[in-house]
Amino acid sequence: MNQYLSKIGRRIKEPPISWLMKTAIETPGLISLAAGFTDSLTLPVEETFLITKNIYKKAGKIALQYGSTEGDINLRQLTSDRIKMLDNVENPSYLPERVLITNGSQQFLYMLVEALCEEEDIILVEAPTYFVFLGILQSHNIAARNIKLDPDGINIDSLKATLDCLDKNGELQKVKFFYSVSYFQNPTSYSTAENKKREILKILKYYEKKAGHPIYYVEDTAYRELRFAGQDIPSGLSFTNLNNHVIYTGTYSKPFATGIRVGYAFLPPEIYQVIKRIKGNHDFGTANYLQQIIVEAIKSGIYAKHLKIIAKRYSEKANLMGKEIKNNFDFPVHYITPTGGLYFWVALPDKAKTGFKSRVFQQALKKKVIYVPGEICYADDPYFKKPTNELRISFGYSEETDISAGIKRLGDAIRESIS
Amino acid sequence: MNQYLSKIGRRIKEPPISWLMKTAIETPGLISLAAGFTDSLTLPVEETFLITKNIYKKAGKIALQYGSTEGDINLRQLTSDRIKMLDNVENPSYLPERVLITNGSQQFLYMLVEALCEEEDIILVEAPTYFVFLGILQSHNIAARNIKLDPDGINIDSLKATLDCLDKNGELQKVKFFYSVSYFQNPTSYSTAENKKREILKILKYYEKKAGHPIYYVEDTAYRELRFAGQDIPSGLSFTNLNNHVIYTGTYSKPFATGIRVGYAFLPPEIYQVIKRIKGNHDFGTANYLQQIIVEAIKSGIYAKHLKIIAKRYSEKANLMGKEIKNNFDFPVHYITPTGGLYFWVALPDKAKTGFKSRVFQQALKKKVIYVPGEICYADDPYFKKPTNELRISFGYSEETDISAGIKRLGDAIRESIS
Repeated sequence: MNQYLSKIGRRIKEPPISWLMKTAIETPGLISLAAGFTDSLTLPVEETFLITKNIYKKAGKIALQYGSTEGDINLRQLTSDRIKMLDNVENPSYLPERVLITNGSQQFLYMLVEALCEEEDIILVEAPTYFVFLGILQSHNIAARNIKLDPDGINIDSLKATLDCLDKNGELQKVKFFYSVSYFQNPTSYSTAENKKREILKILKYYEKKAGHPIYYVEDTAYRELRFAGQDIPSGLSFTNLNNHVIYTGTYSKPFATGIRVGYAFLPPEIYQVIKRIKGNHDFGTANYLQQIIVEAIKSGIYAKHLKIIAKRYSEKANLMGKEIKNNFDFPVHYITPTGGLYFWVALPDKAKTGFKSRVFQQALKKKVIYVPGEICYADDPYFKKPTNELRISFGYSEETDISAGIKRLGDAIRESIS
Repeated sequence: MNQYLSKIGRRIKEPPISWLMKTAIETPGLISLAAGFTDSLTLPVEETFLITKNIYKKAGKIALQYGSTEGDINLRQLTSDRIKMLDNVENPSYLPERVLITNGSQQFLYMLVEALCEEEDIILVEAPTYFVFLGILQSHNIAARNIKLDPDGINIDSLKATLDCLDKNGELQKVKFFYSVSYFQNPTSYSTAENKKREILKILKYYEKKAGHPIYYVEDTAYRELRFAGQDIPSGLSFTNLNNHVIYTGTYSKPFATGIRVGYAFLPPEIYQVIKRIKGNHDFGTANYLQQIIVEAIKSGIYAKHLKIIAKRYSEKANLMGKEIKNNFDFPVHYITPTGGLYFWVALPDKAKTGFKSRVFQQALKKKVIYVPGEICYADDPYFKKPTNELRISFGYSEETDISAGIKRLGDAIRESIS
């Protein structure tokens, strides 16, 4: 009946999160701990106004005219300087010529898949992983293999075993990259340790030879600058002799303002032009006005100051959520307290299923609180059995009273469901 | 050697305009009549600052937070009201539920192709047409058929003949839509007459039955609001009994500020959700900050005022370019004087080739002026011989002195090449 659609058009599914968002909007009094929105209280309203005032005085016409497909050279230079500074090392992978500006890192992920993947190719993902990325793969009929995720990054044995299995099945040439949300991961808030990154890169290099083509290590660092405790970790770009197939993508949206969608990627030269051309066909360049806002935010120091403000705020909200979980979840649970990002990832007792149709979810809905069922964060993968007892809750958007009330309601819902 | 790329990745070509833009930047003193940039003098620098001030006071937090994938409801309502007002008729195709907000109309065109087209499908295009759209088709291995374009829209006989031919070859089911830049077309500045639109829709309906699926009439109205003389023409949405397969896309970028990339599309219900889902995977929604700027621009009346300012300015620049062509092109040429848009489309004597390698182009480059060779605006089509003696020149970006000097240089270059 819909044979006029393309295969993508026929395959693409309504994202599970849409239903959650719709429910949140349509249910008065509902507390959504599901949304990945950022904190509202600390949005840089006044700062952005000051920035636009400066743009008005200094670069009004530039900001309002078309820019270039790859992005403003000043922003690419500042981005290059910034990530080099965070990684604290110098090598050619930080060159501004390797930086492409995008509409958030999401657009970059989409274009990367378009540039590298054919139907039935295989992408390695963390288990669990960012579910919107899984949606991109699904709509393009690209398979994903789940790699077990530990609190310091993926399990190296699981990576090796998966690649060995793919090798034995003659499928290694279909493997295009390993996708990792390497800082305060969505959904777990786990970060990948520096040593793990080095190990991952060595393993990928080994299998690249067998595959006969690059197997990129794609680091999605969307949450890197949402760190409120602990030390930063260098990215894969920093390993000077191992980094030739590292792809690094990040964003200014989450740390600064999600209404201003500016992301970026550091790309190896052999794929830079290809993805830039795809960007040209998508939109021939991210809105210059937004780019100039970020340029001015960084140059003026407003961006750096803002990072401190949100670190304090997220730290407080994360602590509160942790305290409320401790006080209200009086049944066996497993979770770690995050030091950055937006999420708590909670494993309930095995018998407590968390899916949309589960008693826990229905009971929670009845009590007017929602969460993201853990299941949707795992790729469909014949070699992997999805856990069904996990959930993601966010302290990103909710204010303190909602965090407290939400966790209490959720605790009640879970207790009633499992007792 | 690049077998790790997808088919799109391997196929995608450097857009011809990139080379022109690079040349323009790298050649001091060069006058580019090639660029499709908009007027710089009239960019609404102060107006945008006033708007951001209002946003700061009234809706700062909303503007800086994520929005929804389909776009802000106020902007969709205002867009719906606006196009209904221009078309001066009421029917369900103007409902805000049918409006999707995009990163300029360019992103919409890309997503439309993704939603409807498979490799080797066929799209009907005007000959000549918008060359970036041809780039999207090329990278997806989608064929295009050229339909002869007259000054009041495509030649109806050419449309019928092409569809008949496709029918006879059993290829009608591959035809997904007819793409038309229906107002002040890029590159010709021709507009499609109201009666022609009605005829086109009747013909497409006839062949839809044979094809067994919709053949959409896609109106790209990017230049509709750049009218500086004559009367506006209703869009295909206005034909209440013929419009069920009309897709209308437009933009606020060109009429207001190209640095603020906000476009939109009016979509029939059966494809709205599909394209919205693709948008979700691309970027889950256009930057809310930009959307709020446009909302405030429209509500405050600044947008309407700005349209008058640019109409006056483009009218003056178009008149000047027309005058200079008349004074300097002392050889047989054919062109019409536009009443909107950004371009003059000039046919030179047959023997005067205009391609990148032609004497005319090389001579022009030597005299430091560039134009868009007409050839790149025609689709590769085995049934169509591309004219090679045309060129597109723009009065959009250049100021008066450059228009005068540029046309004089170009006239000299052509004269020297053909004499």
